[in-house]
Amino acid sequence: MEQKKKTIYCDNAATTRVLPEIAAEVTEILTSSYGNPSGLHSVSREAKEILASSRKRIADVLGCEANEIYFTGGGSEGDNWAIKGACEALSKKGKHIITSKIEHPAVLNTLKALKKQGFEITYLDVYENGIVRVEDLENAMRDDTILVCIMMANNEIGTVQPIKELAAAAKKRGALFFTDAVQAVGHIDVDLRDLGVDMLSFSGHKIHAPKGIGALYIKNGTRIGNLIDGGGQERKKRGGTENVAGAAALARAVEYMCAGEGKAKREEILNIRNTLIDKLLSIPYTRLNGDREKRLPGNLNISFEFIEGESLIMWLDIMGVCASTGSACSTASLDPSHVLLAIGLPHEIAHGSLRLTLDVENTMEQTEEIYAIVKNAVERLRMMSPLYEKVLKGE
Amino acid sequence: MEQKKKTIYCDNAATTRVLPEIAAEVTEILTSSYGNPSGLHSVSREAKEILASSRKRIADVLGCEANEIYFTGGGSEGDNWAIKGACEALSKKGKHIITSKIEHPAVLNTLKALKKQGFEITYLDVYENGIVRVEDLENAMRDDTILVCIMMANNEIGTVQPIKELAAAAKKRGALFFTDAVQAVGHIDVDLRDLGVDMLSFSGHKIHAPKGIGALYIKNGTRIGNLIDGGGQERKKRGGTENVAGAAALARAVEYMCAGEGKAKREEILNIRNTLIDKLLSIPYTRLNGDREKRLPGNLNISFEFIEGESLIMWLDIMGVCASTGSACSTASLDPSHVLLAIGLPHEIAHGSLRLTLDVENTMEQTEEIYAIVKNAVERLRMMSPLYEKVLKGE
Repeated sequence: MEQKKKTIYCDNAATTRVLPEIAAEVTEILTSSYGNPSGLHSVSREAKEILASSRKRIADVLGCEANEIYFTGGGSEGDNWAIKGACEALSKKGKHIITSKIEHPAVLNTLKALKKQGFEITYLDVYENGIVRVEDLENAMRDDTILVCIMMANNEIGTVQPIKELAAAAKKRGALFFTDAVQAVGHIDVDLRDLGVDMLSFSGHKIHAPKGIGALYIKNGTRIGNLIDGGGQERKKRGGTENVAGAAALARAVEYMCAGEGKAKREEILNIRNTLIDKLLSIPYTRLNGDREKRLPGNLNISFEFIEGESLIMWLDIMGVCASTGSACSTASLDPSHVLLAIGLPHEIAHGSLRLTLDVENTMEQTEEIYAIVKNAVERLRMMSPLYEKVLKGE
Repeated sequence: MEQKKKTIYCDNAATTRVLPEIAAEVTEILTSSYGNPSGLHSVSREAKEILASSRKRIADVLGCEANEIYFTGGGSEGDNWAIKGACEALSKKGKHIITSKIEHPAVLNTLKALKKQGFEITYLDVYENGIVRVEDLENAMRDDTILVCIMMANNEIGTVQPIKELAAAAKKRGALFFTDAVQAVGHIDVDLRDLGVDMLSFSGHKIHAPKGIGALYIKNGTRIGNLIDGGGQERKKRGGTENVAGAAALARAVEYMCAGEGKAKREEILNIRNTLIDKLLSIPYTRLNGDREKRLPGNLNISFEFIEGESLIMWLDIMGVCASTGSACSTASLDPSHVLLAIGLPHEIAHGSLRLTLDVENTMEQTEEIYAIVKNAVERLRMMSPLYEKVLKGE
């Protein structure tokens, strides 16, 4: 077994490394500007100003008002809040919710909990390319549909949904539209002035800010219930002393990834990703999962027949490549990915999938090394497969 | 107006400065051990190990099993989760909840939300000393009482409740017992082996860890619903990528404040606090709010007649002393503190209250300076009071 040299991190959809300048700002705030923003004295006021300016900076980049940004503990809290809060506020109007089959577990399991409370859920198909069709949403809309939840970009196969059109279809029939944009913000353009959604959640740790901070955009005029009741924080909508350092880190990460250097690197990341796709698809018995064009620039999801994804990940890890089979949130489970099943993959092929998610720290030079390591790993693992042996023998 | 020299921070119940060594560890994890604990590769495993060891270290100090500690985004999330989760699980058994009149807004507003859903809430008196009487709880218990929520120590007046006896009274009648210990953990002894509670929440930023991390202790065998549904994190009870750096910071803070140097300083903090109480009570027309003995070592809450608390805070701030009127969570409000009203203070006296909360960074040397600044401020403010003028004239 060869010793790994340097880790090539290709699991950025699971989480990202915090940028050194963001980590430094976090430290500075934790030890110097540590006040509680709700207090009246100078230490508090300093924290309050950081919080307010962070909110404003995020709003400016995403194209909304500062008072439409509510800080949360992360993407899952935002998803839960948007969905449960909307259902609490609108349950008298109706109990029907529409979503897609490939949402994140934070959405799917929240809807599962609401189903137990009497809500009815419709799951839209995403077809082979992993994309929801607007006409399917139009057909599914009912008078008692109160909420439509469709993610902006999928965490496993990276497919990007036509959110603007979907939101318009929902709004036309009077339903609220929520999008989980945890994988999208920072990676593709998100302009709230243009998008037409009522709520949008995102998370810091997917864009080089720390874990434990995120935000929910709630369009002014949208009334939803609280998830976390408490003091008067976040305009009385989300209790809890505000995570000031996290908010500042999120603001800097949003600026970096949505408008700064990180954004400038998107084209390069796309090129690296495409080069890697071409190389990996040259390995026989492979397929790319999800739409080739309508996908996140850094996402690559390929199925290799005759192998187990988990064995592949472990082999790659030994060789210094950090990758994933699907979402990190469900790797503990042995079930095949619900996303890969939804795009029509048979169980055995879904089991042999590899997700590589590239970001600002990946380079074109790495592609040859990644390709060589994956190719070698796939070949070795296939050698152990009785099925592959049969294929080689032409059976 | 004199220029302030050096800030004397006396608002530690609102929030604390993060210890430099904790901030350094946070930075290290954010930039080096940044993996998602749910992944399968080495970067993830490293994060997973930090998370697991942090949980274990906290459990060891507090006297419970590691799998009874669930990381949260802070105290308010823990309060909401414990209460809403218990009500979700037990609503078929009954809809009666007992609490005290001086709980934190995260508890009171959560109960208010549950009241709208048909739950009935009994608020126990705390009398002049700010302490709940066990016999009152015994008398309030009913067959349909499913939950008792009483905070371990109050955030404004620092009074410490007889949690062990209260929990026993609740358990005797088959109800769950939850305590908000956000102000208690790290400041007084908390031993879960002895306490007999079913759930206990606490927060990092009150004990020199960052904002945005906390934990909820849930005794094994206690079944409560989820607040945040999602991936399989926290034993499927709390969705969201785990805040690894926050967890490590919380573990270090718990060790420091509950078992290490911070704990060793409690006696000294108590002495400083008592010295300061004696000095401040020498100012005429003052009273100490809350029990003199059964209170947090660092807490001091004094009412000064004939003045407005907010004016006092601002004056102190100019002179370099950071203090608060009550809880930071409600300072935006002009209503007098619900805690001070509950211990029987008339509105006008409740309005003239000062909370100083001392901690590991305060010193005995500061007491004379704090006293001189407060005395001067109180005298000046009283000079502007028509009521005080009448008193001076003997009217």
